Amino acid sequence: MALKVEKLKVNFKTLEEFKKFKEYGIQELSMLEDLEANMVEDHNDSPFYGIYFGDKLVARMSLYQVDAKFDRYFYPPQSYLELWKLEVLPEYQEKGYGRTLVEFAKSFGLPIKTNPRVKSSGFWEKLDFANVDYDMERDRGENPLVWYPEGVEAQH
Amino acid sequence: MALKVEKLKVNFKTLEEFKKFKEYGIQELSMLEDLEANMVEDHNDSPFYGIYFGDKLVARMSLYQVDAKFDRYFYPPQSYLELWKLEVLPEYQEKGYGRTLVEFAKSFGLPIKTNPRVKSSGFWEKLDFANVDYDMERDRGENPLVWYPEGVEAQH
Repeated sequence: MALKVEKLKVNFKTLEEFKKFKEYGIQELSMLEDLEANMVEDHNDSPFYGIYFGDKLVARMSLYQVDAKFDRYFYPPQSYLELWKLEVLPEYQEKGYGRTLVEFAKSFGLPIKTNPRVKSSGFWEKLDFANVDYDMERDRGENPLVWYPEGVEAQH
Repeated sequence: MALKVEKLKVNFKTLEEFKKFKEYGIQELSMLEDLEANMVEDHNDSPFYGIYFGDKLVARMSLYQVDAKFDRYFYPPQSYLELWKLEVLPEYQEKGYGRTLVEFAKSFGLPIKTNPRVKSSGFWEKLDFANVDYDMERDRGENPLVWYPEGVEAQH
């Protein structure tokens, strides 16, 4: 069965599903506050994409397009996607959900930068993500991994 | 016994000790490569501070001064410290090592920003760190916590 990636509507139901993921933090809390304050109906401009199994959200990621003027990773400097909170619920791991989400991100054709959890490097290598040359002023406590589309290379 | 915070000399011995910490990543690997390539003798300008128990490194953090022109967290905008990789080896936790390191960081009198691990918020609250208003473009996947010295407040 082909896995379908969907842009998530961030409403109360989705935020409830987010609680099952380990990486639940200030971003989710902030969205919840906006909903509770009736500041928004749905976060239709949410950065979250996910995959459902039946009606259960089992995998998700956040994707954000960084403007070219802030690009310090790629040459030529350009807009790129920052990917974070890629996570698959434990009982759904090793089934291609994570890979499907990352391939979806690649389909935009932009370079991608992520700061994965320690010890997930095998997963990212298989998907052709590469280490950067660590730069303390830029990278601080991060472990950035990047994906270069054709014609794009590291910024020096 | 008073705990003593030391600026770490990053040499082969220190890098070997770093391997015991969970948050070992591209920053440490990059320092190791520099040493192996004889590019540096000791990283005396290392951003790492630590506490030894006897001759064993049992706690560490990285501290980096961000220039005022990049400040997007504090008002008035100013230089601040970014703190990361605060970690105490498991058998030395709950003994004040983490608190001692953070208090050392505060002693510089600059505002501090950190992006702690999920579920450590109790520790940071006790040390007067506060949540920021989440801003996706600035914070992306982070959960920033900040400490305001007197006279400093959040940037809006």
